Amino acid sequence: MSGLFITFEGPDGAGKSTQLQLLADHLGSLGIEYITTREPGGTPLADKIRALLLDPDNKSMAPKTEALLYAASRAQHVEEVIRPALLEEKVVLCDRYIDASIAYQAVGLGLSPEMIRRWNEEATEGLWPHRTFLIDIDTEQGLSRIEEKRGLDRIEGREVSYHKRVRETFLALAAKEPNRFVILDGTKSIQEIADRVRHEMDKLLNP
Amino acid sequence: MSGLFITFEGPDGAGKSTQLQLLADHLGSLGIEYITTREPGGTPLADKIRALLLDPDNKSMAPKTEALLYAASRAQHVEEVIRPALLEEKVVLCDRYIDASIAYQAVGLGLSPEMIRRWNEEATEGLWPHRTFLIDIDTEQGLSRIEEKRGLDRIEGREVSYHKRVRETFLALAAKEPNRFVILDGTKSIQEIADRVRHEMDKLLNP
Repeated sequence: MSGLFITFEGPDGAGKSTQLQLLADHLGSLGIEYITTREPGGTPLADKIRALLLDPDNKSMAPKTEALLYAASRAQHVEEVIRPALLEEKVVLCDRYIDASIAYQAVGLGLSPEMIRRWNEEATEGLWPHRTFLIDIDTEQGLSRIEEKRGLDRIEGREVSYHKRVRETFLALAAKEPNRFVILDGTKSIQEIADRVRHEMDKLLNP
Repeated sequence: MSGLFITFEGPDGAGKSTQLQLLADHLGSLGIEYITTREPGGTPLADKIRALLLDPDNKSMAPKTEALLYAASRAQHVEEVIRPALLEEKVVLCDRYIDASIAYQAVGLGLSPEMIRRWNEEATEGLWPHRTFLIDIDTEQGLSRIEEKRGLDRIEGREVSYHKRVRETFLALAAKEPNRFVILDGTKSIQEIADRVRHEMDKLLNP
């Protein structure tokens, strides 16, 4: 597989989607073939699973059910979208991936991180990103950015202490894999962050 | 936990649902508290997952996605329905459970039976039935019984060789756990099968 698999992670409201789109524009301007996608979702079936996951009406969802639904959606996404694009040597830019399940479902909900990692490695046949851009931001600041734009979904609407555990887990994951993760300060300007992302991406494209 | 957890398994069209209901009537006549339930489904959220699983429109579902959706539905069902009923010392009569995932998703779709067993044991915190009634029937005979009654769902509609693997797997699982499984001949009359189920249940209730 010779494409490049790039993920964006970070607390909600850090600016992942904005940066992902700016990087896509940059790749387009270089004439590099890419796709953009997101989790949960990314295929018609995975989008139906996404709807179950984010619907605030599904209040009584058990933590393991939530984690298994994410893994189910991811299995479909990898098989139907991500792996075929990588086989066609494209760059895949994906908003959230396995790291998010370790942060939001395992540590956030009190499930075993080893179990969640294993479920997802089995679901994806061990497909990990080449590079992960972690846009870090203070929990309250991130959430208030989203609330200003739109309402919070079922998972965003959880208490602040939950989101603080999520943020800490992302930073801990990044500390363990410094070669894969690039940590970006989400309080910097959009342009400053985009410049850093481009710089890292250019290094990856021209090693 | 002091209730009794009883499952019904077997190829499609073997007569599980009929026998489950007859056993429920028997328990009712004895004044024993019970619930009847089924998989996939059994809770409002699990029923939404059931709809995704059985919808013939979801043709491109990856095998692992299917297996993870079953496990997700089961996690919710156990937490919300089965375990609470067992804690209230009820008899739980359930149409299909983990054995069905080993037969239909693992062996049927070519996934690792050990992996599917582990996913489901983790999803349910290792909750296995006290007794499993396996109603065995010839593959074609079972499917034609269903087709006469209604159309086939996404999984029933798979080729006959798939359903033959499913049947063989049920028999192999029963051979490995003779104390848990009771194998019943689905070609016998409804009354004959029901008598045998009652007899086994009475032994379980009055050991």
